Amino acid sequence: MTLRIVILGGGFGGLFSAREIKKRLKEDAIVELINDQNFFVFQPLLPEVAAGSITAPHAVSPLRFLLKNVAVRKARVHRVDFEKNHVVVFQGVQRRPTVVPYDHLVIALGQSVDLSGTPGLADHALTMKTLGDAERLRSHVIEKLEHADITQLPEVKKEALTFCVIGAGFSGIETVGEMKELIDRSLKYYPHISADEIRVVVVEFADRILSELPESLGSYAKAQLEKRGIEVLLNTGVASATGTRMFTTNGIEIHTRTIVATIGNAPAQIVSKMDLPKQHGRIAVERNLSVKGQTGVWALGDCALIPMIDEPELRSDFAPPTAQFAVREAVTIAKNIQSTLSDRETSNFEYSSQGSLASLGARRGVAQVWGMNFSGLLAWLLWRAYYVFFLPGFGTKIRVLLNWFLDAISPRSVVQTTPPKTVSARYVHYRAGDRVFEKGNRTDGIYTIIRGKMELTYNDSQTGAMKTSVLNEGDHFGERIMLGDDCRAGTVKAVEDSKVLVLGRDEFMKLAESMPILRDYFEERMRRRYGVDWKPLTDGSS
Amino acid sequence: MTLRIVILGGGFGGLFSAREIKKRLKEDAIVELINDQNFFVFQPLLPEVAAGSITAPHAVSPLRFLLKNVAVRKARVHRVDFEKNHVVVFQGVQRRPTVVPYDHLVIALGQSVDLSGTPGLADHALTMKTLGDAERLRSHVIEKLEHADITQLPEVKKEALTFCVIGAGFSGIETVGEMKELIDRSLKYYPHISADEIRVVVVEFADRILSELPESLGSYAKAQLEKRGIEVLLNTGVASATGTRMFTTNGIEIHTRTIVATIGNAPAQIVSKMDLPKQHGRIAVERNLSVKGQTGVWALGDCALIPMIDEPELRSDFAPPTAQFAVREAVTIAKNIQSTLSDRETSNFEYSSQGSLASLGARRGVAQVWGMNFSGLLAWLLWRAYYVFFLPGFGTKIRVLLNWFLDAISPRSVVQTTPPKTVSARYVHYRAGDRVFEKGNRTDGIYTIIRGKMELTYNDSQTGAMKTSVLNEGDHFGERIMLGDDCRAGTVKAVEDSKVLVLGRDEFMKLAESMPILRDYFEERMRRRYGVDWKPLTDGSS
Repeated sequence: MTLRIVILGGGFGGLFSAREIKKRLKEDAIVELINDQNFFVFQPLLPEVAAGSITAPHAVSPLRFLLKNVAVRKARVHRVDFEKNHVVVFQGVQRRPTVVPYDHLVIALGQSVDLSGTPGLADHALTMKTLGDAERLRSHVIEKLEHADITQLPEVKKEALTFCVIGAGFSGIETVGEMKELIDRSLKYYPHISADEIRVVVVEFADRILSELPESLGSYAKAQLEKRGIEVLLNTGVASATGTRMFTTNGIEIHTRTIVATIGNAPAQIVSKMDLPKQHGRIAVERNLSVKGQTGVWALGDCALIPMIDEPELRSDFAPPTAQFAVREAVTIAKNIQSTLSDRETSNFEYSSQGSLASLGARRGVAQVWGMNFSGLLAWLLWRAYYVFFLPGFGTKIRVLLNWFLDAISPRSVVQTTPPKTVSARYVHYRAGDRVFEKGNRTDGIYTIIRGKMELTYNDSQTGAMKTSVLNEGDHFGERIMLGDDCRAGTVKAVEDSKVLVLGRDEFMKLAESMPILRDYFEERMRRRYGVDWKPLTDGSS
Repeated sequence: MTLRIVILGGGFGGLFSAREIKKRLKEDAIVELINDQNFFVFQPLLPEVAAGSITAPHAVSPLRFLLKNVAVRKARVHRVDFEKNHVVVFQGVQRRPTVVPYDHLVIALGQSVDLSGTPGLADHALTMKTLGDAERLRSHVIEKLEHADITQLPEVKKEALTFCVIGAGFSGIETVGEMKELIDRSLKYYPHISADEIRVVVVEFADRILSELPESLGSYAKAQLEKRGIEVLLNTGVASATGTRMFTTNGIEIHTRTIVATIGNAPAQIVSKMDLPKQHGRIAVERNLSVKGQTGVWALGDCALIPMIDEPELRSDFAPPTAQFAVREAVTIAKNIQSTLSDRETSNFEYSSQGSLASLGARRGVAQVWGMNFSGLLAWLLWRAYYVFFLPGFGTKIRVLLNWFLDAISPRSVVQTTPPKTVSARYVHYRAGDRVFEKGNRTDGIYTIIRGKMELTYNDSQTGAMKTSVLNEGDHFGERIMLGDDCRAGTVKAVEDSKVLVLGRDEFMKLAESMPILRDYFEERMRRRYGVDWKPLTDGSS
């Protein structure tokens, strides 16, 4: 049987491994790449997608275009059996597991985001890790401009026009710079918003920004951002977040409806579950990139902790999680697999960074290349040139260039084609004193208190007198939607800091009508509390 | 106070009304357009978006770009009070209602889709009405190709490669033609799919296709589609649908995972709720486009039934629901509002069609213009030229042309950037004998039987013996996900035709953990049935 080499992950590490391995082994091996999306995302361009200077479908390339003679399997990795040398995947909508055997396995699954360390952040922040995240952020920003333009409520307008980014590394700085450019260029279409109502803030725990670059470039970047009206808060962490506020570790409270978290890198769930040696959540590999204690298993990129010297101790003794390194790691893995197959010695991964670049938006950038520092327009042009050069796929290069051309000669479009993410069952955090909803508000769902205490105020339907009741953990409210109400009959406020589960109206009604336990409970409750005979819709027709 | 003219809806009727009214009244009136999306969709281009020859953000224009000096309010219309002359809307994520007063109101809310007349269709068919629909269809087709390329199950492959379109009017024919082109051009990237495994079918209840066009063009179009391998089934309606099968009124059963319904035009929900005279669900208007029995209320486009003669009887006595007519109706409304304001006589709407065009995909079309018939490449070029001419917004014209240029010179990209629609609580239909899931399948959620009967087969955990139990209406199954199972322990089959509610795993777990009624119920049930002490996760941390 032909040798089978399976690569998990379609980012820089996975894509370039697959290419290099095929190039070396040719017909001697079947090379297969497994990824849960059918395209390659060029991560450094995500902030530009978020800012709308490139449309999402034009920013990415189908993996099948980029990989000649490599099989591509769009599937979700479920688990890896390192004893039996196979991967178990789920393909498409299929619920039946599929077993994919391998002789050599290359793990390049990258990292994911975990914001659970900061109360409220996971439930209220946007992230910037995937193409979907970037599209959602753009859509979200435009939604806030649309809303701010028409609202009559000053507090709502202020919240809508305050945008916060957490983290001032490459991702955070590029995101905040591009986002500000999107807002600035869009304002002329929003006649009721004036430029001085916009507040854009970036929050960083360290005492400087872009810590990967020299101090001087960091200072230049900070000054540039500040010149464009972006506030840079250093030595500031985030303590907690709600749907309308962000609280910092040094006691600042920012009223905002937009929090973008570029922090919280964490191991991908599937990597955590793998029975492999780990350090700091990353797969521990030898200097030749083979996974410690395994044969025929290799790892690279952000999911692996790659020592650059024999007895690594410091953070700088390990390879940084960048595309530049991942691409070189791929070459080493391909060589070493080839060496292993022909019983030759493997070699260690060696590489030193050629430099790094960051775009600040609005045609400004900073760069350090081969020891030289650049800033301003030149650095920005270098950034664009470098990335077009690096971007895999000729068609995608052309598309990105055309998008940039269109963006340079025409107004930035404010079309909001990506609908906001609708999560039917979501957690919402409130601080003591926050209004949850008030009388007359649109009914959006049913609320269950997970933690905290709330106060409901309503007019008694008989006497008209104002009544108050206190709601505790496990209590739910808002079930008058079952009576067909489309506006709230009472007002609810948080008495303590609280967390609730909100279940959307449609999903709740479907459940209440079809699950006997809920149906009986709510029939009884509607009768007792509202004197109403609620009956589920019979469903004989369709 | 300045006169306020409010337009509901941002399609052809609404956009052109707003423009015409502002052009005529200038500073004499505040003109405001309310729409739930901030862009104008050029409906005739939707099939091209579905086929990927134009990317969605490039196919649409922001309403704010197209409307100078007209206020744009992105909001959802909740209701209209025709006594108090105001519209109640919800803006953005805001749950507080906003009241928008008017002196004249123009209703241009179009139509929506209602598939509830055919069992299973609403729950299993894709539609082609909105930009989101078009993006989803493209994503769905590519998902099927990805899956077909890697599955080892012949039946799954066959279902995945069979694509059905219901309805052979303009929308159905253009959709099926473009979809076939997308599939044909993508096949070279899917090495395990051969062209003869693809089946594309269009189903039409009438005895011909494109009934708006002359017989000869319909025949030409049918022959062209058939030449490209598309099956055209005439005199065929759809009787019912499941997730893997479509049943026709003449007894044909098609195994498919893709059903696109271009039928089922129905009044928009908000129009149905309006207290206005209606005929066939459409707003009844006078020949001058004012709503019957109302003063200062006008309606046009697909939501209005517009008589072209004084005593209309036949369908042809009313204006057809096309963009061509809507644009002319807008001019009449603008004139008539101006006349009303200056106490002059209003005039009746008069117009006769200049012709119509359809693209068949693969550079072929049919057209009837000023009484002349065209077909083939010439008609297709006419179609493109006409639509670029008609497309509002200079920037959008350029973008569409550039997209067409890219599409002509490069392969059609198969990137699947739109994630499949995930509905956390969805209805699924099964026919007697269908497998719902089987042992070892991935656990996707909890199932509740709404109608029908199912059979569960499993191995007894003590004895290992095969056991069977019957599940009826109201029963639920699959709750072993609460034990952390990620694979099914048993097999479920439908004994009768059945309908179930599937609630996704994450949503269910959130509910089961936070609602006391469900928590108690499932604690008890897990103890009794599985001898397990299930406890919800405590949630003290975040």
